[in-house]
Amino acid sequence: MVVVMEPGASPETIEVVSERLAAQGFQPHLIHGVSRIVIAAVGEHRAADTSGLENLPGVEKVVPIMKPYKLASREVRGEDSVVKAGRVAVGGGRSVVVMAGPCAVESREQLFMAARVVKRAGATILRGGAFKPRTSPYSFQGLAEKGLQLLAEAAAWAGLATVSEVIDQESLDMAKDYVDILQIGARNMQNFRLLRAAGRSGKPVLLKRGLSATIEEWLMAAEYIMSEGNEQVILCERGIRTFERLTRNTLDLSAVSLVKILSHLPVVVDPSHATGDRRLIGPMSKAALAAGADGLLIEVHPDPAQALCDGQQSLNPEQFTALMQDLQAITLVTGRKLGSLPEAGKGIKAAG
Amino acid sequence: MVVVMEPGASPETIEVVSERLAAQGFQPHLIHGVSRIVIAAVGEHRAADTSGLENLPGVEKVVPIMKPYKLASREVRGEDSVVKAGRVAVGGGRSVVVMAGPCAVESREQLFMAARVVKRAGATILRGGAFKPRTSPYSFQGLAEKGLQLLAEAAAWAGLATVSEVIDQESLDMAKDYVDILQIGARNMQNFRLLRAAGRSGKPVLLKRGLSATIEEWLMAAEYIMSEGNEQVILCERGIRTFERLTRNTLDLSAVSLVKILSHLPVVVDPSHATGDRRLIGPMSKAALAAGADGLLIEVHPDPAQALCDGQQSLNPEQFTALMQDLQAITLVTGRKLGSLPEAGKGIKAAG
Amino acid sequence: MVVVMEPGASPETIEVVSERLAAQGFQPHLIHGVSRIVIAAVGEHRAADTSGLENLPGVEKVVPIMKPYKLASREVRGEDSVVKAGRVAVGGGRSVVVMAGPCAVESREQLFMAARVVKRAGATILRGGAFKPRTSPYSFQGLAEKGLQLLAEAAAWAGLATVSEVIDQESLDMAKDYVDILQIGARNMQNFRLLRAAGRSGKPVLLKRGLSATIEEWLMAAEYIMSEGNEQVILCERGIRTFERLTRNTLDLSAVSLVKILSHLPVVVDPSHATGDRRLIGPMSKAALAAGADGLLIEVHPDPAQALCDGQQSLNPEQFTALMQDLQAITLVTGRKLGSLPEAGKGIKAAG
Amino acid sequence: MVVVMEPGASPETIEVVSERLAAQGFQPHLIHGVSRIVIAAVGEHRAADTSGLENLPGVEKVVPIMKPYKLASREVRGEDSVVKAGRVAVGGGRSVVVMAGPCAVESREQLFMAARVVKRAGATILRGGAFKPRTSPYSFQGLAEKGLQLLAEAAAWAGLATVSEVIDQESLDMAKDYVDILQIGARNMQNFRLLRAAGRSGKPVLLKRGLSATIEEWLMAAEYIMSEGNEQVILCERGIRTFERLTRNTLDLSAVSLVKILSHLPVVVDPSHATGDRRLIGPMSKAALAAGADGLLIEVHPDPAQALCDGQQSLNPEQFTALMQDLQAITLVTGRKLGSLPEAGKGIKAAG
Repeated sequence: MVVVMEPGASPETIEVVSERLAAQGFQPHLIHGVSRIVIAAVGEHRAADTSGLENLPGVEKVVPIMKPYKLASREVRGEDSVVKAGRVAVGGGRSVVVMAGPCAVESREQLFMAARVVKRAGATILRGGAFKPRTSPYSFQGLAEKGLQLLAEAAAWAGLATVSEVIDQESLDMAKDYVDILQIGARNMQNFRLLRAAGRSGKPVLLKRGLSATIEEWLMAAEYIMSEGNEQVILCERGIRTFERLTRNTLDLSAVSLVKILSHLPVVVDPSHATGDRRLIGPMSKAALAAGADGLLIEVHPDPAQALCDGQQSLNPEQFTALMQDLQAITLVTGRKLGSLPEAGKGIKAAG
Repeated sequence: MVVVMEPGASPETIEVVSERLAAQGFQPHLIHGVSRIVIAAVGEHRAADTSGLENLPGVEKVVPIMKPYKLASREVRGEDSVVKAGRVAVGGGRSVVVMAGPCAVESREQLFMAARVVKRAGATILRGGAFKPRTSPYSFQGLAEKGLQLLAEAAAWAGLATVSEVIDQESLDMAKDYVDILQIGARNMQNFRLLRAAGRSGKPVLLKRGLSATIEEWLMAAEYIMSEGNEQVILCERGIRTFERLTRNTLDLSAVSLVKILSHLPVVVDPSHATGDRRLIGPMSKAALAAGADGLLIEVHPDPAQALCDGQQSLNPEQFTALMQDLQAITLVTGRKLGSLPEAGKGIKAAG
Repeated sequence: MVVVMEPGASPETIEVVSERLAAQGFQPHLIHGVSRIVIAAVGEHRAADTSGLENLPGVEKVVPIMKPYKLASREVRGEDSVVKAGRVAVGGGRSVVVMAGPCAVESREQLFMAARVVKRAGATILRGGAFKPRTSPYSFQGLAEKGLQLLAEAAAWAGLATVSEVIDQESLDMAKDYVDILQIGARNMQNFRLLRAAGRSGKPVLLKRGLSATIEEWLMAAEYIMSEGNEQVILCERGIRTFERLTRNTLDLSAVSLVKILSHLPVVVDPSHATGDRRLIGPMSKAALAAGADGLLIEVHPDPAQALCDGQQSLNPEQFTALMQDLQAITLVTGRKLGSLPEAGKGIKAAG
Repeated sequence: MVVVMEPGASPETIEVVSERLAAQGFQPHLIHGVSRIVIAAVGEHRAADTSGLENLPGVEKVVPIMKPYKLASREVRGEDSVVKAGRVAVGGGRSVVVMAGPCAVESREQLFMAARVVKRAGATILRGGAFKPRTSPYSFQGLAEKGLQLLAEAAAWAGLATVSEVIDQESLDMAKDYVDILQIGARNMQNFRLLRAAGRSGKPVLLKRGLSATIEEWLMAAEYIMSEGNEQVILCERGIRTFERLTRNTLDLSAVSLVKILSHLPVVVDPSHATGDRRLIGPMSKAALAAGADGLLIEVHPDPAQALCDGQQSLNPEQFTALMQDLQAITLVTGRKLGSLPEAGKGIKAAG
């Protein structure tokens, strides 16, 4: 940490800051600049709360040097982490995982049709929301436990792993018996209670980036989960909020590449929520894989025009099947394989 | 709602859209433009989920006309709402309410000192966090129930009402027996479960605007609370996240004035979190009152340099007392009175 | 400047960085931290181009310590600057200056009516665009020199000073003979050629903040003008671009207060462009004065519904007159006086 | 255009709006909704200035339906445009064009080395700035005409076309005799005088997206150039300004894919300025091609650590050569070819 003093700060104020730093376990080093004094504080200050420093007389600003996250950092763990969800491995650089399915579980028929389609096209994880955080209290809020049951049944039938969103302790307690991966949505990325609960659950967690979360805050949210002893975290970029209005959000693919440098955790991309526009899901899926993403999270609905949520960003079965074929080439070019084939005696053949 | 069709949309696709609108209870009116057809859908569609419409063939975009919130809207209730917290009334245009105190409850000594200071200076509500949502899992997280007890004791001693943040069902259940106003923080503004729980609690709720929440989303979050039958909602603007780096957030005072037009709910401003800079709290407090805010939420700490959180944005007792004197004139100019005097036989005289 | 080395940077790479710093005139000081080396570079590096440093092997990041602006800084000049435009003084803390008039000069009749209205209400500077930067090439682009002539005539008749936008060298050369203050618009805030030309003109310059300009970039733009020897710069906050859609821009009043701390230059606020909504101009004008602004720039049109540009944000004569009366009290409360009375034998009486 | 009236708007106000629309050449159609009247205005209103409408009594808002750009729109021209710069064709879907070279022309030696490197690696257009728009007036501003001469010489020697930035009429007049493509930088995207001048020049124009320009504003800027009769416009996405701080800007690749749908103009991507981080240039180049970009603009410097500007985002010769090899596969997968081979008897062999 570097403490920049105001020009003309008195020796007394500098002494006070130095003593305060020493009291917090740092060694202060004074550097006499042309117009002001800078104090370099040497020591392990990740966990220390140093916010009061900026309020000491004579202090102009405090510049942190160390990264605030530790367990999520590649400095701590050099190799890529691999998260296991059922038989599916996410991360590690050998395969690209596709998680697909409807925004919300609406009915048995809808979900089984979706499961068949995504399995046939090569996805390995079925998505489907049972608890929907909706902007309006008057919109469809999900089928709750009934939705989780249907998700588990459809996935077992088709030979897929599952991911579904949880929104509080109660839904998390319910979901952990039904699904392979607990999803924490963008609006809950800094719901720190929920992050800790997900950490304690021991289940793999898909952590979406918040609408206006910096990369550092996103990694700190992962740190919350990991600080409870759960290292099974998958990061998911889903677009950030900017001034642009023609796309729902702005997909930040440079964040994906940068997080792959800063952290060992796997990163997937959700082009459906990022763009809100089905015409952009194909190009953004390809771009995500080219940028180094470990997988994709894509909304697929048997009949998007009848969807109870997010219909305008859902692919229909033909569109999704065509997209998966398109993605084969780019996956191979990045030295990986896409999705998985059904196991003998199970999965899609039996399912069909 | 207006549905804009693509240029050259076929009569069949237009028919499909019209039938879909009719099936949802709207009367579709076709307007033949120069290069495309526009369908005006007449009907009450606030609650309808129309997202699938954009996925119908031939649809270019769907433009909503009605505001999505209802209970929070001034169209439904023309007069200003007044929220009662203990003996303090927030809103209604006759007085300016100041809520002040430390970011976090740290100790009995700290809190009682803070209570005395803010009471003497004219504040009527004591703030103090017992559950702190912190970006880092390694930072101080609050005293929990012990903090709530201290808050209630200090406030009773000084003759103040109280406000404190809740972060999940458990903390809400605990807090509702100790505090007058439940605060929902910016990071939880779209924690819809928590909003509903706060609605069911029947307690007054201070709802902070999310870091990247639009004004409409903020009012929809209030609608969640109100849809549970609780109309005691105070909105709090605390700065939004923008590209600017010299202030922690960007205080959006035009949102305050606009919300006073769109909604009947009281609006207060938190200049401490908005700016993160104690030098700006004074001017932004004055500007907030000039913009029509019904009150202020200000961080005050007996010794900001020792604060366990947010020290750089806390005022010390002298600064806060001077600010309150400064605010008198601008409050009078807006035709209101600032804070309240202690009641006979209670409050600060006894407290001092 | 502080250079943070990567963890494990070799002694050779540290040596290279130190030599490079020394070659640029800095004294490098090595600080050995727990996990990495930090090099503090002491010296005057405001003008030095140090961008290459970050590309040296082993360098993690470079943290500047000094502010990049000099002439605009309060560190260089402690007292408030006062800019003189005709008989009007902007800045200095004794009066609040109101610049008002139509978005664009449209006709002699429109402009003379506007001049009379704004003069009578107490404004001292007449605004009116002759060169309009419009998003669409098909929109009205202004009357050019004819507009400047009308502006000068109307202002002389009513006893007002003038401000008008210039958009390139040619329009600047033309305008400097007609107007008292050259305005540089938000879209040209980093048109560095235009900034230098405005600096060389020796005329007072009103410099609007760019739509996405940081406070530091805004002050650097002022520095461009001042580095040509022209200290007559007035800064104008007019809203920044954010995600919020219900207001055209987000008025950043904390920037006004902060710039008054960081710089000695006068700052005015344009609530018309900031909000794009005539209902918000009143509250935001008051808030701007409460935040410490030295003046206001307000759009007034004799008949806003017929305006060729920005009608929805223009006040009509009655609205503007009422606003000016409203602003009296808040101006007095901040210890200043609003606008000026017409001089004997001139101005509005003759004009009326 | 749709005009939404306030609830309870009087018949008189509706009549006034209808008459105003009729006077502007529209046919007004009244739609009686549940709580308010909506007026659909049928007619060609692209060029009309309708801003005054929102100021008529009783009008709540005006919703435009048509896109404001015309010449740039795919509705007007269905096929991809191809822009010819010397022997190089940009756009059309058959090849990927790489423009590479230093941020600024610094010296003959630097530029000829850069030209040789980029030619050998397969780039076909040499970039190099002679007029540098710098945030600080104290930074290196470019070699001006001397820089243009060196650029033309080095490109002729190596067999490359050229692109270089112009910043005003004077630099444009100078550059048009030396370079194949005139670049208009992000900070000048709404310098409408410069856009018109570039249009009149008849030269190919590379138009960078502004830091906070919406996609629509970007296309309107292209429309300015095209409205002068010059259809040779290449769009360049270079990152937008957001709250994220770990990357210089946020590269908006969904904008690239969307512009390819909305417009027939070629689109290239500048990963160097977008990220400001040489580690991200490789992944973002691949992602850009996967998203459908027609080319790339990449900063290459013989010795980035000595660069006079933007060293931290420049690739050195080895890095650029390796990147071009990496890009081969992804280019082939998208059915295109990358760059070009030197012609017989010319280019790099002779050059070497």
